[in-house]
Amino acid sequence: MASHGFWSLGGQNADNPGSQSPNTPRAWCQAAAQKFPGGLGSKLCALLNVGEAEKPVDTSTKQEQETPAETCGCNKPCNCSKAATGFSELYSTDLLPALDGDMKTMNFLQEVVDILLAYIVESFDRSTKVIDFHYPNELLQRNNWELSDEPESLDDILVSCRATLKYAIKTAHPRYFNQLSTGLDMVGLAADWLTSTANTNMFTYEVAPVFVLLEYVTLKKMREIIGWPDGRGDGIFSPGGAISNMYAMLLARFKMFPEVKEKGMSSIPKLAAFTSEHSHFSIKKGAAALGIGTESVICIKADERGKMIPSDLEKKILEAKQKGLVPFFVSATAGTTVYGAFDPLIAVSDICKKYNVWMHVDGAWGGSLLMSRKHRWKLNGVERANSMTWNPHKMMAVPLQCSALLVREEGLMQSCNQMHAVYLFQQDKHYDLSYDTGDKALQCGRHVDIFKLWLMWRAKGTIGFEAQIDKCLELSEYLYNKIKDREGYEMVFDGKPQHTNVCFWYLPPGLRYMEDKVEKNKRLHKVAPVIKARMMEYGTTMVSYQPQGNNVNFFRMVISNPAATFEDIDFLIEEIERLGQDL
Amino acid sequence: MASHGFWSLGGQNADNPGSQSPNTPRAWCQAAAQKFPGGLGSKLCALLNVGEAEKPVDTSTKQEQETPAETCGCNKPCNCSKAATGFSELYSTDLLPALDGDMKTMNFLQEVVDILLAYIVESFDRSTKVIDFHYPNELLQRNNWELSDEPESLDDILVSCRATLKYAIKTAHPRYFNQLSTGLDMVGLAADWLTSTANTNMFTYEVAPVFVLLEYVTLKKMREIIGWPDGRGDGIFSPGGAISNMYAMLLARFKMFPEVKEKGMSSIPKLAAFTSEHSHFSIKKGAAALGIGTESVICIKADERGKMIPSDLEKKILEAKQKGLVPFFVSATAGTTVYGAFDPLIAVSDICKKYNVWMHVDGAWGGSLLMSRKHRWKLNGVERANSMTWNPHKMMAVPLQCSALLVREEGLMQSCNQMHAVYLFQQDKHYDLSYDTGDKALQCGRHVDIFKLWLMWRAKGTIGFEAQIDKCLELSEYLYNKIKDREGYEMVFDGKPQHTNVCFWYLPPGLRYMEDKVEKNKRLHKVAPVIKARMMEYGTTMVSYQPQGNNVNFFRMVISNPAATFEDIDFLIEEIERLGQDL
Repeated sequence: MASHGFWSLGGQNADNPGSQSPNTPRAWCQAAAQKFPGGLGSKLCALLNVGEAEKPVDTSTKQEQETPAETCGCNKPCNCSKAATGFSELYSTDLLPALDGDMKTMNFLQEVVDILLAYIVESFDRSTKVIDFHYPNELLQRNNWELSDEPESLDDILVSCRATLKYAIKTAHPRYFNQLSTGLDMVGLAADWLTSTANTNMFTYEVAPVFVLLEYVTLKKMREIIGWPDGRGDGIFSPGGAISNMYAMLLARFKMFPEVKEKGMSSIPKLAAFTSEHSHFSIKKGAAALGIGTESVICIKADERGKMIPSDLEKKILEAKQKGLVPFFVSATAGTTVYGAFDPLIAVSDICKKYNVWMHVDGAWGGSLLMSRKHRWKLNGVERANSMTWNPHKMMAVPLQCSALLVREEGLMQSCNQMHAVYLFQQDKHYDLSYDTGDKALQCGRHVDIFKLWLMWRAKGTIGFEAQIDKCLELSEYLYNKIKDREGYEMVFDGKPQHTNVCFWYLPPGLRYMEDKVEKNKRLHKVAPVIKARMMEYGTTMVSYQPQGNNVNFFRMVISNPAATFEDIDFLIEEIERLGQDL
Repeated sequence: MASHGFWSLGGQNADNPGSQSPNTPRAWCQAAAQKFPGGLGSKLCALLNVGEAEKPVDTSTKQEQETPAETCGCNKPCNCSKAATGFSELYSTDLLPALDGDMKTMNFLQEVVDILLAYIVESFDRSTKVIDFHYPNELLQRNNWELSDEPESLDDILVSCRATLKYAIKTAHPRYFNQLSTGLDMVGLAADWLTSTANTNMFTYEVAPVFVLLEYVTLKKMREIIGWPDGRGDGIFSPGGAISNMYAMLLARFKMFPEVKEKGMSSIPKLAAFTSEHSHFSIKKGAAALGIGTESVICIKADERGKMIPSDLEKKILEAKQKGLVPFFVSATAGTTVYGAFDPLIAVSDICKKYNVWMHVDGAWGGSLLMSRKHRWKLNGVERANSMTWNPHKMMAVPLQCSALLVREEGLMQSCNQMHAVYLFQQDKHYDLSYDTGDKALQCGRHVDIFKLWLMWRAKGTIGFEAQIDKCLELSEYLYNKIKDREGYEMVFDGKPQHTNVCFWYLPPGLRYMEDKVEKNKRLHKVAPVIKARMMEYGTTMVSYQPQGNNVNFFRMVISNPAATFEDIDFLIEEIERLGQDL
């Protein structure tokens, strides 16, 4: 691997990163061969081989690639090797709907599944890399990714699948902490495979009868958990938290000025929205898109823990009114992106009620704490909100994407967004039209995001989600306790984190006792990016960093990965110290 | 099945719908048992059994459910039955990341895949139903869909998977014509399974290196096909055509009035957008959301074939200017939803150029004709557009969702939408930041929609997509020729359709010679809904209908399903006549 100046690897060679780093693929193969009986381990390894220099060179393993293996992926010894299927002579046109395409289709899909199963097993194995990192230009050259006029054989297609996975991030890896969405749930994955196979669209009951009902059942359950009477209200699964938040803003505007739908913003007074300075950027993005303008999003001060200060909210609302603006929307955050802070919802709701402003709760990240009897008090007051964003694809580890907008008032989404397209929402259909939910969406076609959440909920029960969430919070408390007084660490804010966000600086030995604060901060600002770059080049773990306000770059550790353990937290700290000590 | 008044089945019993209707599940099992050797057919059938009255009662088949089957789903005789795995004693907590969860995970996922493979094979079989229709209240009672506190066993989870598929629409079925998105591509499906397994997010190169590069490669290829020099420009895959169209409108507004991002609509003049009366409702939906207002979307007259009349566009632009409105956006449609009409893009572009208005082409449905050397002339002039929506999930049969917005000007999306969130788009990362595409999106997290399109393109080549598209157009021409002079049919518009949309009325014998035009139209309006309802109750086929303007309900047949053949077109016509003759 080439050296990249300041980014280069600290004191060690990337190809021989020491005992704490993941093994090479070859070593993983050898371990897998021992772990799984009957040749399955070697088979799993061979399935992922993309024919690079790192491929297993052990003769016995190689042998299995070229001759029929002892197992077919069915996990027991049998004589049903698929190596004989000859994918190199088959093309997509040989698969269904081709005549007699059934067996070829099943063999092809089974081969893909075998590759995926091998990838899954590998992903959860701590001895493998989280990422086999390459710079964009390198990666472009590592494989032929171009599209051409001529078809490729199914064998080539399988090679592309293996190559794609080889360079993918293993988001299931127990040491992947980089985003708010981490981990890979096996029931959720199964549900997503089924969703792909069903390949339909949420807009009408006609084409998605079961999924529409499951969305209805699940949204009602979520509203019950929020605390709205009898789970009444409305909602929709949208393509992510940013869009859910935008929906909320759209509804708030329509509720106050329904004429805006036909006549636009020029027919109504100038609006003002309010959200804390720590809130997610999607609030401003939504305001820009909806024609409200980012300047109309007024930032409310947050305290040192990142929580909105209610008195500042009231002050800013009054100031806005004095300027002739009409306050229409407050977005309180339940679980801010960086600090994991929960705005004081009861105090916020009192102010919203007093000034007749729509109260939205952006619980994209923190909403899932409602599933925990131990932690749901952090959202006390959410039941007073007019709407709430809640992303099960974050803290509940539902596969991406799965974001819900919940709305207290029934029928408002429909009035706000409906356009009565008669080609889709015929009023003379033979079933109950209230199940044709498409006209309340901004989208026309809408991806089926519900089944994975619903099936996971069935498999875990509410108590299973609760246990999973409680465990992540326990891990973050463990991390906090471990580093809060440890030499070389400084916490970004004091006190136990409310969510799993633990924000801290790591100070390499050379920085710890620097007198010159300006120079110290200047150097400290560069530490996290370098450690992160090295983590990625070694592929050992991934964690995020960023500056915030006057704070120079710090690590934001978040834990939503159900595969993580106390040992993985220990590993993270050791790894930061290993990779950062020379800086 | 209960009778539903006017909706009831014409002259026959739903449970015995005659020889033209699909066989019962039991009959399918018997046929499958003969078709697939080594017990595989019975196994496939058993996999889909949900334990209802309709389940196979043949003793030998039942036997296989309860005792180890002869095959394990590996498609060859072997002794690796998974019946012994005992899913009824396993829970999701036994799967990965549980210690020693590997084998249990592989067995569970393999069982799900076996169910999916059986469903796929069944879906392509014309002897099965397209849909096993139930009214919402019936369907709610047919299964326990509720969510509870306690977990269910993996066996229960498998039962839920089977039940979900039992009541799903078979969108892969060769006689499913209900939407613009139909069919199920096997390589696309494999790619979607891989995408679910990779479970990542498009916002940064850091977490989706391969997918980000593939999006780059694919968008460039699509822009080359549009005809923009060297494929330059920009673009994004969005959650559907409605959102892609909204993006285009957002960009057009920002291009003309960049201050709108900060200051909102109240800082700029009143805008006017233009689109034909036959265009998709998402243009108005977008205008409502963006604060422009639906009244600012001015409808341009279409000719009798549904194409925008350029002279009326120019007239309406001038009228708007006279009223003090600022024309900023024209959305021409390439393939309207109902008629499949292509607006005259060259004439439209001349007008857009003359009045300095952003030209968008909504090619969600018709854009894919660019892949066909025979049909791409219908989009002549698209290369003059500023932006284009193109949904590969429609005419190219890529699994849902896959919609692209292509933009001619580079950098505009970024300026329009970026919010510089430092926690995500850190500027001190160690790789080329131009690959962090998230800040040009309205979404924060973004689902990976690219891999299925990219892998299908590799598998088919451009010529494969071309052949698939040409075949669908050939089938629609066959349908048109078959019914245009057939007794009992009237075409909604004259002449050969430009796309695969064939719009027609079926007049039952009793209506054909009615003198009273008003009464005739009144009755004709009810014919298509009843035939459609009967189609769904029999489950034989599905096709859409709607009124348009002064035209009472007519059938809109569209063909995007690569599994359809001439015989399926013949079947559709026979079925309409069978189900509608008594009306």
